Amino acid sequence: MPNSKQVSIPTFKQVQKAYLKIRDKVHRTPVMKSQKVNERAGGALYFKCENFQKVGAFKFRGATHAVGNLSDEDAKNGVATHSSGNHAQAVALAAKQRGIPAHIVMPENAPKVKVNAVRDYGANITFSESTQESREATLEEVIQKTGATFIHPYDNPNIIMGQGSAAIELLEDKPELDIILAPVGGGGLISGTAIAASGFSPETKVIGTEPEVANDAYLSFKTGERHPVQSTDTVADGLRTSLSELTFNCIQQHVDDIVTVTEDEIIEAMRFIWERMKIIIEPSCAVPVAAVFNGKVDVSDKKAGIIITGGNIDLDHLPWQDFEN
Amino acid sequence: MPNSKQVSIPTFKQVQKAYLKIRDKVHRTPVMKSQKVNERAGGALYFKCENFQKVGAFKFRGATHAVGNLSDEDAKNGVATHSSGNHAQAVALAAKQRGIPAHIVMPENAPKVKVNAVRDYGANITFSESTQESREATLEEVIQKTGATFIHPYDNPNIIMGQGSAAIELLEDKPELDIILAPVGGGGLISGTAIAASGFSPETKVIGTEPEVANDAYLSFKTGERHPVQSTDTVADGLRTSLSELTFNCIQQHVDDIVTVTEDEIIEAMRFIWERMKIIIEPSCAVPVAAVFNGKVDVSDKKAGIIITGGNIDLDHLPWQDFEN
Repeated sequence: MPNSKQVSIPTFKQVQKAYLKIRDKVHRTPVMKSQKVNERAGGALYFKCENFQKVGAFKFRGATHAVGNLSDEDAKNGVATHSSGNHAQAVALAAKQRGIPAHIVMPENAPKVKVNAVRDYGANITFSESTQESREATLEEVIQKTGATFIHPYDNPNIIMGQGSAAIELLEDKPELDIILAPVGGGGLISGTAIAASGFSPETKVIGTEPEVANDAYLSFKTGERHPVQSTDTVADGLRTSLSELTFNCIQQHVDDIVTVTEDEIIEAMRFIWERMKIIIEPSCAVPVAAVFNGKVDVSDKKAGIIITGGNIDLDHLPWQDFEN
Repeated sequence: MPNSKQVSIPTFKQVQKAYLKIRDKVHRTPVMKSQKVNERAGGALYFKCENFQKVGAFKFRGATHAVGNLSDEDAKNGVATHSSGNHAQAVALAAKQRGIPAHIVMPENAPKVKVNAVRDYGANITFSESTQESREATLEEVIQKTGATFIHPYDNPNIIMGQGSAAIELLEDKPELDIILAPVGGGGLISGTAIAASGFSPETKVIGTEPEVANDAYLSFKTGERHPVQSTDTVADGLRTSLSELTFNCIQQHVDDIVTVTEDEIIEAMRFIWERMKIIIEPSCAVPVAAVFNGKVDVSDKKAGIIITGGNIDLDHLPWQDFEN
């Protein structure tokens, strides 16, 4: 019998169905490889390039599925969320494509470029203070006023199912992968990825990767008890959130291991990929690359897929520049 | 009868043959597009991504062809060139792949990262002073000593033929292009591109693009007299060279127009592509993009291919950062 904390997690069939629903609305992103990267890694790496996804991040998959899955009744007053990152743009564009309003709460100190991107997709923006409490309270007010449906960035089965579609495409292109690596923030991507692999390719191991300074998923996984994130002081700005009960359960059931890397390792791996592959990847997805480069995951003579989560970064402040000064 | 200045230019058949010779040695690079870029351009742009080519630039095509085409007798003492840029790496790798020595003269102030890249390919490096005279004199000494064959970066029909293979691949993928745009430095790429298009797709117009401050090709094209470049003060570091008689003749015969753009336009276009397409392009290939974005070439309701020449850039000094300070 399930214990009281257990919540029902999405099935492989649900991830498959989600993929079929959204496949015409999302880009089928390319899988890239590089001889120089493989020489360094000592194995064959396959990059699933969600930095080329719409809005520049995999988040558009989950948002498209979650927004598309609402009943007309639930959808008619629009959708709402709070985010200063990729999820905000993803929900804004998914809502625009469905033809319903999007209400996005953003902290007043959010970068102007991100605010403009959300506005360009036609969303209504409400500013809050930058604390978590203020963001949640402001979102609550917006929902009260508009009747919009809240789209949580990861504590939502429909989001998890949508995120899993990236791994389905990756495994369709490269069915022989020994390992798939993805970063862990709130856990939506790694959950969807692991569920997808469990059904599509059960022999493929799925490994989560996390910054050492924001290692809540690592601690939760190792101890079997959910730990909230203690510090958000990582360059990997997409990974500063804690697991939810739902994503923790997905991880416990389907993820094979979680490893951590240092900030220096993240920045160095990110720069290496920019220089050798000529693609712009955000710090969050340099985390699994760093794990491979620094021996945290052994890929010798193996084939490993890595979900490149996105490419949204402030080009005026690159981490190796901040880092060196 | 040809006048005394006329030199024999490569034919379309020679470009085709070059392509067949090198096709297994070079990457077939992808053709990318972006809805956001097209919205801004007002037409459909197709990027031939030579930033994903080996050594990070199209130069590897020409070098592979020129080095591969040497007789065993000419090849046995190796090849030599002077370059601080992509041609140096291209010749070094092409020689390595043929199993012959490469002797590269580099200015003593060349960026360390470029020196290391050339050294990593196993080339012998000789340093010179940074003046053109010193580079040429040092190269002459190296050739005297080693008996190596000089591989000029563009004043060489075999180089031009090899560079033309990028346009052949582009036109194979997108035969319906109305226009192809490429930057003009020494003229090797635009020559090969225009010869390829003239045979493969005679209706496709080929337009060269150049920085306004290094507009030697523009002046030469418009006046019918070859002008040397007067200033090398452009951010587009690959375009600081003058046409040769050979490339000028190719351009006169096959190129439809040459247009120029300002430094500000180059930097802004480059940043736009990084932000929207998440690919790293060097300033030189932002020049044709800038031409389209700023109305120098009208692509309204047209399909235009752009050769993205490379992605080699110093990530510590991005031009919008230098520019803003």
